[in-house]
Amino acid sequence: MEDRINVGIVGYGNLGKGVLSAISQNPDMKAVAVFTRRDPGTLTIVNDVKAEHISNIEHYKNKIDVMILCGGSATDLPEQGPSIAKLFNTIDSYDTHAKIPEYFEAVNESAKASGKTSIISVGWDPGLFSLNRMFMEAVLPEGKTYTFWGKGLSQGHSDAVRRVEGVKAGVQYTIPIEEAMERVRNGENPELSTAEKHFRDCYVVAEEGADKEKIERDIKTMPNYFADYETKVTFITEEELKKNHSNMPHGGVVIHSGKTGDGNKQNIEFSLALESNPEFTASVLVAYARAAYRMSKEGQAGAKTVYDVPPGYVSIKSAEQLRKELL
Amino acid sequence: MEDRINVGIVGYGNLGKGVLSAISQNPDMKAVAVFTRRDPGTLTIVNDVKAEHISNIEHYKNKIDVMILCGGSATDLPEQGPSIAKLFNTIDSYDTHAKIPEYFEAVNESAKASGKTSIISVGWDPGLFSLNRMFMEAVLPEGKTYTFWGKGLSQGHSDAVRRVEGVKAGVQYTIPIEEAMERVRNGENPELSTAEKHFRDCYVVAEEGADKEKIERDIKTMPNYFADYETKVTFITEEELKKNHSNMPHGGVVIHSGKTGDGNKQNIEFSLALESNPEFTASVLVAYARAAYRMSKEGQAGAKTVYDVPPGYVSIKSAEQLRKELL
Repeated sequence: MEDRINVGIVGYGNLGKGVLSAISQNPDMKAVAVFTRRDPGTLTIVNDVKAEHISNIEHYKNKIDVMILCGGSATDLPEQGPSIAKLFNTIDSYDTHAKIPEYFEAVNESAKASGKTSIISVGWDPGLFSLNRMFMEAVLPEGKTYTFWGKGLSQGHSDAVRRVEGVKAGVQYTIPIEEAMERVRNGENPELSTAEKHFRDCYVVAEEGADKEKIERDIKTMPNYFADYETKVTFITEEELKKNHSNMPHGGVVIHSGKTGDGNKQNIEFSLALESNPEFTASVLVAYARAAYRMSKEGQAGAKTVYDVPPGYVSIKSAEQLRKELL
Repeated sequence: MEDRINVGIVGYGNLGKGVLSAISQNPDMKAVAVFTRRDPGTLTIVNDVKAEHISNIEHYKNKIDVMILCGGSATDLPEQGPSIAKLFNTIDSYDTHAKIPEYFEAVNESAKASGKTSIISVGWDPGLFSLNRMFMEAVLPEGKTYTFWGKGLSQGHSDAVRRVEGVKAGVQYTIPIEEAMERVRNGENPELSTAEKHFRDCYVVAEEGADKEKIERDIKTMPNYFADYETKVTFITEEELKKNHSNMPHGGVVIHSGKTGDGNKQNIEFSLALESNPEFTASVLVAYARAAYRMSKEGQAGAKTVYDVPPGYVSIKSAEQLRKELL
């Protein structure tokens, strides 16, 4: 394709690598450069994509159509989002739910001033899950929406496990409780806390000679992380950990049970089962990069979310093709 | 609410009744009148909504913001869609997939000329299923999308059963084949015909003294309808039919299994389990009526599909609320 969308990537962790890989699956896109705060000479990037120090980003103003920001929500994006939106169309996966309105305002101000389009909080939650929560509620206003996460590797909880005395290595999976999901599907509209929706499944490698009973107790009673949850601890060997627990799976399900007419039950579900969480999030970011490019061409400047983007803009297909092939 | 969206309903079958019921669940909307080709005096309409003969529709030009067309796709909509779009913003559930491009052009011409907004082919398939097919394919281009229908009552196949000699009454449910769904979830990307994805489950009331073996044989060997399918026939009494088979359930699932990176499997599913098919379709139509109203206010004239509508426009919530509460 002659006229490809030129994409830049800011940050080269798991998400940035996933974006590069996803771009190679989309023939209308081309990765131009990866921008890093590290010494770009130390980065090995596939597909002959250039590594650049982030301080050189301005020189790419006319060479890049959309910049995909792959930094974290805690410290990277609050700074990079508003500053890069002054120069480029951007996509990010900002996921600190409580601070989204504030982040939106900051990015919106920059993007309105520069005339660029910035789609924030793209991914699966926020992102595809958010879209589904909205459609479910809009279509079936008499009903209730539930989000269950997992089976998924939780970085925060895995770190907490690893901090326990006597633990050499370990991972934690968050798993939805089947009975809770069934109650929702049955239309009971239950009140469910996060702890009533999920249990925590830990796989732990103990240090040699460590007191396993104490480790298990220390994990299960840890406040905030495990004490309120049903928690299971399984001890495994280091080899087993490497072999069976080195992926980053995640996923979840959004369930809505509503009623129409004289009480007819209507259920909607959207679910994801992902073998690689960062690669999937990256794939969503890349699809929305296409939308940002198109909206920018139409002059739709400012910050946007998945709620503002006409769905067809994320597809490589034209509106005519979509009507013919997928509607 | 003072400033409600005034809605008109064209046609008062199951779908029209579902629309009236759905409007009562949406506090920002008001049903103004139902338009019919029958003698309006013969219609009993709930909630004090007026019944009008369709020939009076022009008199409502300034009283109705959006007209929801509840006629069938075979003969009603091809005529009503383009003609009513000359006067009103419209929503319809046109579902003859193969003729959508042609129908789109006809409605588009009228709506462009009148400056109105017409969203066509709204419902669940086409509609919410179409949206999901598109998102799945756009996010995971290396993968394949499958649509399974059911468990659902099929009108066409039920009619076919009832035409068999010796059959007094009967219904037919289309049911997805679990093993086929599992193969898709496993990422096998199988080639599956409609017959390999679904079986046909018939409940039949025989005339007194009829030859049940012959009935079963006649059904199972009927060309087009049953011969290519795994078909099950169960004889029941008239009482059982009334008691257990008088609802119009439907639903289905869209499954996509894709791959990212070095072959990580990523699965997406969207499913519906509906106790009332027409009431659910009606609920989707009503949510999109809100979107048509808003797009019309912005001057976005012409025919649209779910691919063109920014998702947030279907929600009663403002963009700010959506970002704060659902993103």
